[in-house]
Amino acid sequence: MSFFGSRWVQAPAHATECDPTALPRGFRAAGVAAGLKQPEALDVGVLVSDCTDTVSAARFTTNARVGAPVIASREADLARLRAIVANSGGSNTGDGQRGLDTARATQALAAELLGVGPAQVGVASTGVIGTELPREPLLAGVRAAVGALGEDAEGLSRAILTSDRGPKRACLEVTLRSGTVTLSAQAKGGGMISPRFATMFCFVQTDAAMSAATLDLLTGVTVKRSFDRISVDGQLSTSDTVFALASGASGLWVAPESEDELRLGEAMDALLRQLALEIIHDGEGCKRVGRIVVRGGSELVESVARAIANSNLVKTALHGGDPNFGRILQAAGMVFPPGEGLIADLEIEGRLVVSAGEAALGELSELAPLVAREEVEYVLTLPGSGAETEVFFSDLSPEYVHFNAEYTT
Amino acid sequence: MSFFGSRWVQAPAHATECDPTALPRGFRAAGVAAGLKQPEALDVGVLVSDCTDTVSAARFTTNARVGAPVIASREADLARLRAIVANSGGSNTGDGQRGLDTARATQALAAELLGVGPAQVGVASTGVIGTELPREPLLAGVRAAVGALGEDAEGLSRAILTSDRGPKRACLEVTLRSGTVTLSAQAKGGGMISPRFATMFCFVQTDAAMSAATLDLLTGVTVKRSFDRISVDGQLSTSDTVFALASGASGLWVAPESEDELRLGEAMDALLRQLALEIIHDGEGCKRVGRIVVRGGSELVESVARAIANSNLVKTALHGGDPNFGRILQAAGMVFPPGEGLIADLEIEGRLVVSAGEAALGELSELAPLVAREEVEYVLTLPGSGAETEVFFSDLSPEYVHFNAEYTT
Repeated sequence: MSFFGSRWVQAPAHATECDPTALPRGFRAAGVAAGLKQPEALDVGVLVSDCTDTVSAARFTTNARVGAPVIASREADLARLRAIVANSGGSNTGDGQRGLDTARATQALAAELLGVGPAQVGVASTGVIGTELPREPLLAGVRAAVGALGEDAEGLSRAILTSDRGPKRACLEVTLRSGTVTLSAQAKGGGMISPRFATMFCFVQTDAAMSAATLDLLTGVTVKRSFDRISVDGQLSTSDTVFALASGASGLWVAPESEDELRLGEAMDALLRQLALEIIHDGEGCKRVGRIVVRGGSELVESVARAIANSNLVKTALHGGDPNFGRILQAAGMVFPPGEGLIADLEIEGRLVVSAGEAALGELSELAPLVAREEVEYVLTLPGSGAETEVFFSDLSPEYVHFNAEYTT
Repeated sequence: MSFFGSRWVQAPAHATECDPTALPRGFRAAGVAAGLKQPEALDVGVLVSDCTDTVSAARFTTNARVGAPVIASREADLARLRAIVANSGGSNTGDGQRGLDTARATQALAAELLGVGPAQVGVASTGVIGTELPREPLLAGVRAAVGALGEDAEGLSRAILTSDRGPKRACLEVTLRSGTVTLSAQAKGGGMISPRFATMFCFVQTDAAMSAATLDLLTGVTVKRSFDRISVDGQLSTSDTVFALASGASGLWVAPESEDELRLGEAMDALLRQLALEIIHDGEGCKRVGRIVVRGGSELVESVARAIANSNLVKTALHGGDPNFGRILQAAGMVFPPGEGLIADLEIEGRLVVSAGEAALGELSELAPLVAREEVEYVLTLPGSGAETEVFFSDLSPEYVHFNAEYTT
């Protein structure tokens, strides 16, 4: 079965799937059990590029409240990262100077062991907010992981998991005009928007050669079309982190605004969108995934799409396969100026349900078979034209509540 | 047991509780079963003031998408209402001209039967959005209810219920300087912010005499401090409606800016706050109610309080009695400008948990007994001073999800 399992992601042209745990040339990785979460569970991962010309790009949560690793990483040389240290079992958020010292000690130790500068190490932590991340076990984990570095991302992709059902990773071979490069990524979590207690991470690697500016552009565009477009519960994490590294080990140069940039960008776009959808599908208790597309002339398309994707009433109806489309209109109406009215068309799975603001359906039950599938698509058309957006969202299930009602205890 | 069961509502001075179904002088009401919801369940209610000098005030949802009854009521003479017709079993929202005609036919029939003008009849409907509200059964219900008008609000308070556990109503005798007036109210639902599929209504009556402007002022202030401060699920309804009627039948005049206005206002404030808290407590599956108080110099206090009250992670932790206070900071950080940092103090039940943004607690388990009570209070202090707000919110339970996943089917 193809990695590109969602009908909302087109398998990229010029790309073929390979072993999902494979890494591009120039990269090594490992994951070890350092005792930060359950005994024997992998919880510290290290990724390193052995190529001195490696360029990198990064994106972080926009939450004003961020974890110490985000603070420390932001101060690093984000265009010249050579290594990433990531852990689960504690987000190292809200622990003050002690937490920041731990993040910096992690950078320093990894740098020393790997022969790079401390500013070339990105760090990322996930887990409970507001408790201490124990420094010594973490540093011991870094030593062990550096000692165990190997050619694949199996350990790394597992060491970053929290409540994920399983690892989320893929590797593609992308055919450029001049040859073939490899592109891989490992992700965790359930949202840009915090799934359950946690966070999303995505680490991307390629052996293509390019400028840091090109990688930053590709990362920015593809993150905006993937992890920026998903919501499990509307909760922005303190620790969301994307690191992309290009080792250049293939020797194939991707020039700005070239055909190859487009090919690599398409592959990276599909890769990140599918990983983002996997994060949604992996949301605690998730049974169905929705896609809301909002079109119109209004600058409100973004806030309308978010209001629908984050509505507990829309999400519970999605969970139950309940054709309660009135909730879509209610949620959309929340973000319009009062008294303005809401004249919209709503299609569900291609079926016109609301026309010019009024129900266009005989019986709700006609909708039932359309909303009982694993992926459900809603298209809301507001007056005007020129703007369009989409948000992918999970349903809201009793399991989500059970899980989150008892997380720290 | 006193009606004023919450520690967050002070029983008003100068007021005593009487039979909760009682109505002030000048009012009659009834509720009948018209077949709009389950067989034999009361679903159409009528309230009338027999005094020609009656004044009134109203407040409606600010959702851009409103039901036909809200449209019809807004066009009525809201300072001179004499009657209210309310139904459950259908919100009459999204049914176009047919729905609007039904709302207006309801006003016209009630006006004819009661000998008032059609513009003196307020209407309010609650139930599913986007389906037809059957006109003939509704009008037959109005006829039956007018024929059954009596001296109490028992039937009316039941006819407006949807998924409520039971009726929410109270009646107070308020001692003014010149004598005693009666103040009563009936409410339904789980939020200004739609509980489950529904809506909140509150109908307030008094036999005090006053100008329409005074009643409007009292209504505006007390609604802002009650139904505007609650959230079950962050979902603004299409049909929220508050109607307040003052019959003047006591003959006691409440002058603007008088001691009596203050006394009546205090009683109305306590009455509406307690009813608002009952709506929260009545949220589907609700086990615990939270109160978030946010203080500081920032204009962000309101959005921070809303972000916390509407966070599914905060709400699930409240449900589980889980001392996961990091989620409060995470939710608050969502609405701050990125990179600004979030330096705040957080108290839970009077215990300082976060000081200047960093955890001030040894072990999370120290908090456990404090968050396991029926009402839990959080106080977040941001930098600066001068602004303070509060929001009451329900927890999020598996029962909420079960209920809403299967509502229309």
